[in-house]
Order: sequence, then structure tokens, then C-alpha cells
Amino acid sequence: MEEKMMINGLLGDEILTPERLSSLLSAKKYAEVKLLLEDVPSPDLAELFYEMDEGQHTLLFRLLSKELAAETFVEMDSDLQESLIERFSDRELSDILDELYIDDTVDIIEEMPANVVKRILKNTDSENREIINNILRYPKDSAGTVMTTEYVRFTGDMTVADALLHIRRVAIDKETIYTCYVTDKNKRLLGIVTAKQLLLAEPDTPLSEIMDENVIFARTHDDREEVALMFDKYGFIALPVVDKENRLVGIVTVDDALEVIIEESEEDFAKMAAMTPTETSYLKTGVFSLWKSRIPWLLILMLSSTLSSAILSGFESALPAVLVLFIPMIMGTGGNSGGQSSVTVTRSISLAEVEFSDLFRVFFKELRVGILCALTLGVATFAKVMLIDGLLLGNEAVTLLVALTVAASLALTIILAKIIGATLPLLAKKIGLDPAVMASPLITTLVDAISLIVYFFVASNILSI
Amino acid sequence: MEEKMMINGLLGDEILTPERLSSLLSAKKYAEVKLLLEDVPSPDLAELFYEMDEGQHTLLFRLLSKELAAETFVEMDSDLQESLIERFSDRELSDILDELYIDDTVDIIEEMPANVVKRILKNTDSENREIINNILRYPKDSAGTVMTTEYVRFTGDMTVADALLHIRRVAIDKETIYTCYVTDKNKRLLGIVTAKQLLLAEPDTPLSEIMDENVIFARTHDDREEVALMFDKYGFIALPVVDKENRLVGIVTVDDALEVIIEESEEDFAKMAAMTPTETSYLKTGVFSLWKSRIPWLLILMLSSTLSSAILSGFESALPAVLVLFIPMIMGTGGNSGGQSSVTVTRSISLAEVEFSDLFRVFFKELRVGILCALTLGVATFAKVMLIDGLLLGNEAVTLLVALTVAASLALTIILAKIIGATLPLLAKKIGLDPAVMASPLITTLVDAISLIVYFFVASNILSI
Repeated sequence: MEEKMMINGLLGDEILTPERLSSLLSAKKYAEVKLLLEDVPSPDLAELFYEMDEGQHTLLFRLLSKELAAETFVEMDSDLQESLIERFSDRELSDILDELYIDDTVDIIEEMPANVVKRILKNTDSENREIINNILRYPKDSAGTVMTTEYVRFTGDMTVADALLHIRRVAIDKETIYTCYVTDKNKRLLGIVTAKQLLLAEPDTPLSEIMDENVIFARTHDDREEVALMFDKYGFIALPVVDKENRLVGIVTVDDALEVIIEESEEDFAKMAAMTPTETSYLKTGVFSLWKSRIPWLLILMLSSTLSSAILSGFESALPAVLVLFIPMIMGTGGNSGGQSSVTVTRSISLAEVEFSDLFRVFFKELRVGILCALTLGVATFAKVMLIDGLLLGNEAVTLLVALTVAASLALTIILAKIIGATLPLLAKKIGLDPAVMASPLITTLVDAISLIVYFFVASNILSI
Repeated sequence: MEEKMMINGLLGDEILTPERLSSLLSAKKYAEVKLLLEDVPSPDLAELFYEMDEGQHTLLFRLLSKELAAETFVEMDSDLQESLIERFSDRELSDILDELYIDDTVDIIEEMPANVVKRILKNTDSENREIINNILRYPKDSAGTVMTTEYVRFTGDMTVADALLHIRRVAIDKETIYTCYVTDKNKRLLGIVTAKQLLLAEPDTPLSEIMDENVIFARTHDDREEVALMFDKYGFIALPVVDKENRLVGIVTVDDALEVIIEESEEDFAKMAAMTPTETSYLKTGVFSLWKSRIPWLLILMLSSTLSSAILSGFESALPAVLVLFIPMIMGTGGNSGGQSSVTVTRSISLAEVEFSDLFRVFFKELRVGILCALTLGVATFAKVMLIDGLLLGNEAVTLLVALTVAASLALTIILAKIIGATLPLLAKKIGLDPAVMASPLITTLVDAISLIVYFFVASNILSI
């Protein structure tokens, strides 16, 4: 789908396939390669590397201009970055690091083994090293870990003309120049000025006149997902991050917010499907890593199903054979009902739409939805058991009371499943556990056991077994 | 978490709670309210409305400045928008519509009933009405439906000074001025110029010298999620959208891309939990709407479980009672294994990391992961059945052969479940169905039936029943 419009561009005439690139490299036509690569966007360049022989990686990388090399390096995954760093000279490494934005350097460091981290820090100038070390000290998944310290800062006494001049001087090193920050001499945030405001104002206007003082900001220790969601709410391009003393220490840019949103929801998808999130994309993740991400929960859930077996073994002899036929249906519907509620509530927690104080609202909402679903499915199940299992499939053991037992058990299970599914994630959040894990098959296991107990309880009352 | 820094701002001294606002309105202190509201960001203002009596909505809305009123209106959900529109005079409605960006107007129209749409279109000027009607004709979830037509366009013969002057003249009506587009007289896209480039270049430089001709673009009919993912890949603030003749017809901005990413992943969460996605957030969705979104799949899955019941009923009499105890465990583990694979592959499809041509790579990957998981869980299950169910719980019917039957059935089920779970979403995508629906409990139902057949097959071979 993604296409490039090649007007006048070299790529317009010559499509750069991995095969063509490989053969050009083998033929040592380096000047030609250099020229071709200049027009490839860095994310596509990074993808080209994966299609090339590993032996050509270093050569290819050295043919990139300094700036493009750094941009491409950032787009690679950590395995490829590590293997390149290992082949870099200290000089090359330090050249790349000079070109990187601080937040990208931090992202890279976070994925590298200790010896590589040491080499990276050794080849960073002392000022940046201190900034990096500060960022690395912020808690996992906090705003501090996604922010960059390279923003444009003005003082309140500057005019629009001063500000534009300042931008021209520093723009090259800043991650965005479109939102700029006015601070006092202690770096306390006073207001925000956008490039749009600067372009529209008269040159001699003082910034203090045009700046927006109603600043929305995040704190270094805020959760990065909550910060990212503020970009969706307010439509920001960048958001300032302040420390405990309200001093501006960095900014989060919208591209990082987008990445956080995608990463966090992929993590939730994985957890809800009973997996540990993996760092790399599916096709790039090895079989062993996939196994490692999937096996722990499968083992836990397998073991926890002992509960259902034990309950079944306690009641089985008393249960008429015909009722056994409907166990999968009751357990399945219970699991599905609970799963619906838990996924809904868990996502609402992630999107900061629901919090623990809403517990009772959620409880009553799910109770009512549960009763509606229970009535609908109860009636449908009664009809289905009588008509399909009884008449159509000709099972003579299916009596009116059997159908009633199945339908009533199902209805009760649905209500309980919905309430458990909706409230457990909130309780988990409250005591500091991950709600997404609660939305996983763990709830199904719990609901499985409960549905069996309900089934036996209802059966013993209706059928007096 | 989200906080406002109130420096000099009126809100710094007086916190604007819904209660305070309500009492100010009752006391008819309109001038004071007006002043207070000016400093509240529009998304927060929209939230304030939900906390107020409905009777105060129109009054409150009329106290907002034209621009703020339009910004706030966009942030409301469609129910509130509809109830306000019903109380607007035609004049008021047309004032609001004048202030809105076209893409926001389209978003609103898409959620309104026919009579409201008619009124909106009647109160839109004829030029905009035509643009809106064109946008409404694009296919559902296409790039055309999320783009805006309000972008900054230059011609190639303009200089940097011309461009900056042009921006100053038109900026107020444009959604972004930070990425601008150079086209020929037929609106064919020639290149991109950013505000940063304009700020850094000499005033007399022709745009043709500084523009980036290697333009990445989307087409009007491209899927909006794929377009949104390009923002993550390339870090854009805006992306041009062209028609079949490569004419620039609009741009997608990063805030819309962020919204698309969030909406699409929430839709996938809902579908994977066997629900129809709802438009509004959980707490704002009514009990009946929640019921409607949840009941169809519960019914379908309940009915489809007839398959498992039928299989059970065919074999049950031949099955030793002890084996019945492990049915929940085998079915559950099968469902969990298949769910892991299907969620992984479905998300990879959504993120455009995997496509149908990867079918065999996916198949072999899952086969190998499946075998690893099967071996691990098979051994663990054998041990668990012997030690926990046999020794610990003292079930004398648990023999070595029973444990072997359970373990072997489980292992075989896991491999089959993983292959089905991973390949069905790809097949669904290929024939134009929604892969996320395949990742839903539908796969569980299928795997349930298969696991029972496997169980009986293995049991009849090992235990010769």
C-alpha cells in the first residue's frame, strides 16, 4: 500500500530492490549505491538491511551519509543494532551517537547487553552521558523514559524576531521546533509558543504577549500510556514534562506518543491472550522466544484446571449422563460472557475511562447487562436443548426438566461471569496487579469452576439428584 | 494525572468545578462564566458539559466564543452534539459549521440521523457542501474519510518569502501549516516543504530548490489503518492523499492517525472478545447497547457448541468416567493455545506485518512452536495427572495409561489448535472476512470440537475402549 511518488527522484528510474543493491555492492559500484540510498526514507532503508546478507551490512551502512546512517540505525531492531555496534570502531560509534536524539539513544541502550551499554556510554560526550544516566533512572514506563531533552526554549523577554533567530540557530539539534517553551531563569515553565504563532505575529512582539500560559504538562513519573492518551485528547504535537519543582526537563513528541499507544495495546493483546509480550514483530521472533512467551500461562492454566477436574470428580457420579453433554456449552458460554466484560473493563482502564472509584457503577451496569444476556440466552438455550438436542438429534434423555436445568444454570453462570469479569480487573488495578492479566484466560478458569458448581447446584435442586 | 499549570491564568485562582459553574449560571453571572471558560481547553470543556444539567447546555454553549464553541463541539460525543443541534437556530448552526474543519464536519455527519444531516448540509455553504458530499462517497474506513481538504498549497515558482506570506494569509483556516505541499496547476503533487525548511532557508530561495520530491503519499481508497500506521513508521505530522490521477485532494494529520490507531485496536479488542464494537466509551454506553453488542456472538457460540455436545453424546457411553474429568482441561488448553496463535497472527495482520503470502512461513512457525509447547505441556500434564489427580487427590482410576492418554491428547490438540488458530485469520483475510472475528471464541468452539475427537481417538487407541 505504501508507495513512493518518484518525481525527478533517482528512484523513479531505477527501482532499488535488495537484489539490485546486493549486485551493485558485489560489483563495488559504491558511488552509484551511495546516490541511490540518499533517496530512500530511513525506515525503508532499515528494512532493506534485513533482506541483505549479514556480511554486507557494515559496508552498506558505511555508504550512508552520517545523518541518514543515524536515522536508519534508529529504525533497526535491537539485534541488528547490536551486531552493527560490535563491528563499529569507537570513532564510528561516537559519530552515530552524536547524530542521535537523546531519547533514541536511551531507547537503544535499554535493549542492549551491559557490555554494549558500557561502550555506548564511553563514546558519548560527558554532558549527554549525564542526561542519559538521568533518564535511565526514571521508573519503567514513565513519561521520563520517553521524553527527549532536545527542545527549543525561550525566555520571556525575547521578541518574536529573537525567537525566530534562535530557532534558526538551534533547529538542527531539536526534535521539534513547532512547539517551543518559555521558561524563567530557573527553567520553570511559563508558557508555550507555537511556530504558527511566531509566523503570524509581528517581529517586535514580546513572547510574553503571545505565549499561551494555560500549559498542560506531564510529570516525569507519570505513566507513559496516560501521557500518550493526552495527545489523543488534546491533539498535541508535543507535551512538556516537568520535575517535582515544576522545572521543564524534557518534552514528549507525538511520534513517541503514537509508538507508546501501539506498544501498550499490543502488550494488552498479548496478555489477554495469555502471553508474555515479545519485543519484536511476529515474523522476526524466533520459535524459541514464541514458545517462551506462550508456555508459562499455558502451564499455569493447565494446572489451575485441576480445580474443574476436582469439582467434576466430586459430582460426576451423581450427574445424569445427559447433563455431561452440556458441560462444554455452559463452561464455554460462561467463559465468553466473562471475557466480554473483562476485556471491556480492562481496556476502559487502559484508556483511563474507568477507575477503581467506578467499581459500583461497573458492578450494577454488568449486573443489568448480565441479567438481560441471561434472560435472552436462557430462553434460547431452553428452546435449543428441547428442539435441537431433544427433537432433532433425537436424544430421549432430554426432558423438559433437563432443558430447564441447563437453561437456568447457563443464565446464572452468565450473570456471575459478567460480574466477576468486570470487577476483577478493577480490583487487580487497585492492589497494583496488571488488569490485562486478569482479562486473560485466568478469568475463564475461575468461571469454569464456578459454572460447574452452579450446574450441579441447579441440577440437584431441579432434578433432585 | 492530567493537570494544568495555572500561571496568571484565571483558573489559577478559581478552580472551575461543575458545581461552581452551575451555581454561577443559576446566579446569572454570565460575564464571569465567559471569562472563566476562555481558559479551559476544549476537550475539558466538553467533559464539563456531561457534568451539567441538560437544561444548562444551550446556555453554557452560547457563552463560549465562536471559535471555542466550535472546538468544544467537536470534542463532544454524537448524542450531545445531536441534542445541541436540535436546539440551535439555523444561524447558530451555520456559525458553528463555518468554524469547523471539513474532516470534523464529516465525522459529525457520519454519526447523525438523516434529518440532522439534511439540516447540517442546508446550513453549509455550497462549496463546502460539495467537498463534504465528495468525502462522504469514499468507502468506509478509507483514507478519504479521515482526510481534511484544508491544507497549505504552494506552486513551484514561489520563493520562501512568497510561501511565508501565503501562510500568514491562509493559516487561520488550515489544519496544519507545518507540512505544506507544492503542486502544479492541475494539483498534481510535486513535493513537500516543511515550515522548518521555510524558517531555515533564505527568503529568496525558490521552493523548487528546497522541497522534498521524494514524497510518500496515500490514495483516497487506501485503508485508514494502514495509512495511520505509516505515521508510526515514518514519524509524519501530516500525509498527503491523492486521487487516481495523482492529484492532491487532501491530507491526513497525525491527530487523526492517532485516533484511527486507537479506534481500530479497540475494535479488534471487542471483536476478539466476541463483541460488536460500540461507538461510545464503556461508562457512557447504555445497558441495552452493551447487551446488543454482546448477545449476537454469545448466541452464535452457544448454538455452535451443539457440535461439541453431539460429539460427546456419540462417544460418552464408551468413555471411562475418569477421562470425563479431564475434558475441561483438554478443551481449555486447546482453546488457550489456539487463542494465543490467532491473536498474535490477527494483530500482525492489523499492523501490516504479516499477509496471506506468509501463510507457509506462519504455518511452519506455528507447527514448530506447537510441537515445543505440546512436548512441554504433555510432559507436565502426564506428571500432573499422575501426581496430583492420582496420588494427591487419591483417584484410583488414574492409571499410567490414563495419564498417557490425557497427555498425548493434550499434546496433539495443542499442535492442531496452534495451526488452526494461526492460519484461519490469514484465510479469513484472503476471502475478505475480518481476521479479528476469527481470533474470537469462534476458534475456541472449533478447537473444542477437535479436541474432543482427538481425545476419543487417542483413548480408543491407548486404552482400546
